[in-house]
Amino acid sequence: MVESSSNSSTALKSLIPYDENNHFPLENIPFGAFQNPHHNHVHCCTRIGDKVVDLAILEQNGLFDGPLFTQLRPKVVFEHHHLNSFMDLGKDYWHEARVTIQNLFAEGSTKISEEILSKALFDHDQVQMKTPVFIRDYTDFYSSKNHAYNVGVMFRGPDNALQPNWLHLPVGYHGRASSIVLSGQEIVRPRGQTSADQKNPNFSECKRLDFELEVGAYVGKSNQLGKPVKISEAPDYVFGFCLLNDWSARDIQAWEYVPLGPFNAKNFASTISPWVITAEALEPFKIKLPVQEPAPLNYLKDENNYSYDVELDVLLTTNTLTEPYTISKSNFKHMYWSTNQQLVHHTVTGCNLNVGDLLGSGTISSTEKSGYGSLLEISWGGKEPLSLPNGEQRTFLQDGDTLIMRGSCKGNGFTIGFGDCSGKILPALDESNFY
Amino acid sequence: MVESSSNSSTALKSLIPYDENNHFPLENIPFGAFQNPHHNHVHCCTRIGDKVVDLAILEQNGLFDGPLFTQLRPKVVFEHHHLNSFMDLGKDYWHEARVTIQNLFAEGSTKISEEILSKALFDHDQVQMKTPVFIRDYTDFYSSKNHAYNVGVMFRGPDNALQPNWLHLPVGYHGRASSIVLSGQEIVRPRGQTSADQKNPNFSECKRLDFELEVGAYVGKSNQLGKPVKISEAPDYVFGFCLLNDWSARDIQAWEYVPLGPFNAKNFASTISPWVITAEALEPFKIKLPVQEPAPLNYLKDENNYSYDVELDVLLTTNTLTEPYTISKSNFKHMYWSTNQQLVHHTVTGCNLNVGDLLGSGTISSTEKSGYGSLLEISWGGKEPLSLPNGEQRTFLQDGDTLIMRGSCKGNGFTIGFGDCSGKILPALDESNFY
Ligand SMILES: [Ca+2]
Ligand SMILES: [Ca+2]
Ligand SMILES: [Mg+2]
Ligand SMILES: [Mg+2]
Ligand code: NI
Repeated sequence: MVESSSNSSTALKSLIPYDENNHFPLENIPFGAFQNPHHNHVHCCTRIGDKVVDLAILEQNGLFDGPLFTQLRPKVVFEHHHLNSFMDLGKDYWHEARVTIQNLFAEGSTKISEEILSKALFDHDQVQMKTPVFIRDYTDFYSSKNHAYNVGVMFRGPDNALQPNWLHLPVGYHGRASSIVLSGQEIVRPRGQTSADQKNPNFSECKRLDFELEVGAYVGKSNQLGKPVKISEAPDYVFGFCLLNDWSARDIQAWEYVPLGPFNAKNFASTISPWVITAEALEPFKIKLPVQEPAPLNYLKDENNYSYDVELDVLLTTNTLTEPYTISKSNFKHMYWSTNQQLVHHTVTGCNLNVGDLLGSGTISSTEKSGYGSLLEISWGGKEPLSLPNGEQRTFLQDGDTLIMRGSCKGNGFTIGFGDCSGKILPALDESNFY
Repeated sequence: MVESSSNSSTALKSLIPYDENNHFPLENIPFGAFQNPHHNHVHCCTRIGDKVVDLAILEQNGLFDGPLFTQLRPKVVFEHHHLNSFMDLGKDYWHEARVTIQNLFAEGSTKISEEILSKALFDHDQVQMKTPVFIRDYTDFYSSKNHAYNVGVMFRGPDNALQPNWLHLPVGYHGRASSIVLSGQEIVRPRGQTSADQKNPNFSECKRLDFELEVGAYVGKSNQLGKPVKISEAPDYVFGFCLLNDWSARDIQAWEYVPLGPFNAKNFASTISPWVITAEALEPFKIKLPVQEPAPLNYLKDENNYSYDVELDVLLTTNTLTEPYTISKSNFKHMYWSTNQQLVHHTVTGCNLNVGDLLGSGTISSTEKSGYGSLLEISWGGKEPLSLPNGEQRTFLQDGDTLIMRGSCKGNGFTIGFGDCSGKILPALDESNFY
């Protein structure tokens, strides 16, 4: 173990040892769900260092002893397959749970017995993570200006790159919730309709299979149908964040998307990272977004418009390149419309959000080619192949490729990480599976 | 066994009296959910004549005594808030439940005691219906050629009315599941961004509020992610149908929908009728669809492509016109792409359907102006107002208007009806609710 040496460090000290580069220090306290190998049940959990901690075991043993959780008894929220019951309690409970866990595992803490530790702690590489949240509705936005501009330049040239509505509202569409999968699940290359001449279709495997680097926001509070959320209230509705790969079949999308938007091109899978990193954990990494010009309409106006300084890395392995190679370095700060603005816009016509809903940020690209959030941009529509260190080239994803997203925030003496969001591409099914 | 009887009429005879115009004869046996006023629980139910029948009570008393349900015990499927558990059993169980209910309530049946009848039967106007199915994912298609052609003519002229992809695939988009509401729930007129010049937006109440006449199909079988459904298997996946009003804010849609499709214009509410009319009940009303030209790709090809002969009526009341006035008469047979084709196309890239998913047909318009499925078409984009019998005119919906959809099939001596799908428009919230 590396000693986290520095005197100037403000890092918390834990009874579970980890070094300062570990992505799960006491400052993080992410929430997730895992298969408890003793119980053979799915329980809610957190992670500290390299240990996954079963929160249901702590709860059963009365260790959530703050005033709010004490009043909640005998109701339990962590002995569940998903975090939704916990999320539904609201932000005061989220805070109390976080502080309780930080105190339980603080260096020198004696609140938690050896016996309970032996039941509640698991090596992270010995357990299987599960989908952390039941996501009833999933919405994907399109709110990075660099990304929208790049795509616009490719399709319409630089003078008309942004559509007329883009600077006035966070463009979004409803996505498919059922096909959201957890990091690690393999992705079968889709097959569907494509059309080179935009007239006659072919039935073909996707030849322009892409990733989209996104951050997902989990809704932690519901609003009533017909009752819009105000921008000042929006932060209360955001429980936390994950990494999101909105896999995209570009050739299928190009043929199908007029006039009602992407459908088969997106609904075959979207991958999420296993942990929910809370808004509270990211608080020190808040970063003010630039003033929006033109000024948005009043309902979207936010004096305090922010995103977070989360470094986002995209890495690739292939059948022959086994060491992950970084193909993009972006950041969650490259947003034009904030999560709060997206959420408010979602409800403006009265749409009701439920606890557990997922809002995708949209592909996040930096201004530099080294930080583009999709292969469509990196290879500039397939015209400028990316060279890999072993001599391979890529325009779009090949069978056997594994795409990995990572996110992290550098604090003073600690790092908050998101956990990998990865998926490997399997070959398309042959035609006999279709008719 | 059920006798399909006799001389002039083939109608079944029931121990619950009803006349031949009643929409809920023994030939129907719809499934729904209602608040049982004795228990104060939501249970699954059916309807016969003017009686709502609590299926949980029948199940508790061992009256589902066919071989499949007998083997199922002690598991119960009707003592639930939604039909999903029942639907998940599959089509052999759907059939057995239907036949069991038809036999229990056949004329002369003595299988069901007076005591149970008194506990299980309720006057339909004395009980509150509930959302019949938990809908996790909702997809809306755009599959009536007459409708797509009308909209295309308005926006692009007759020569380019259909987009290039329209005759090759059932265009669809993912909708918002959370805001699906039951018939009778009032609809708050949405407020949002509109732009007359397609350049500068206003924050305005919707001034072009419309309905869309659709039929919804409930998925009754799930497919695994990555495993497409073949057209020959598709009928097993369709449990039944409802009426669906896909409320649409045309002015909001016009500004927001490029390039990712409708969002706020649709997500404020969609109304469903309370009953699920099973595919089995509609079997006698199957109607072969015309041969498709150009021929679809193999995966969509169906020698036996069908819809159903369901008359669809749209009626309107206003603050001063209290007698419902018929503003459109269409039919579910006016489909180009069938429900089976929509379902197969949905899964072609590997998307997984879940039991309870709802597939909207898309607005169903006949070839005649008297059978258009939206006010956009009826008033031809607002240029040809509709005259009501009391002298009022309508281009789009006004506050206080109630829009009612009805569906029915005329059999030999009986009628199968869907139950009303209605909603009344309330005024928009004032701006103080938004910021
Ligand atoms: Ca996306
Ligand atoms: Ca529609
Ligand atoms: Mg996706
Ligand atoms: Mg709708
Ligand atoms: Ni357990």
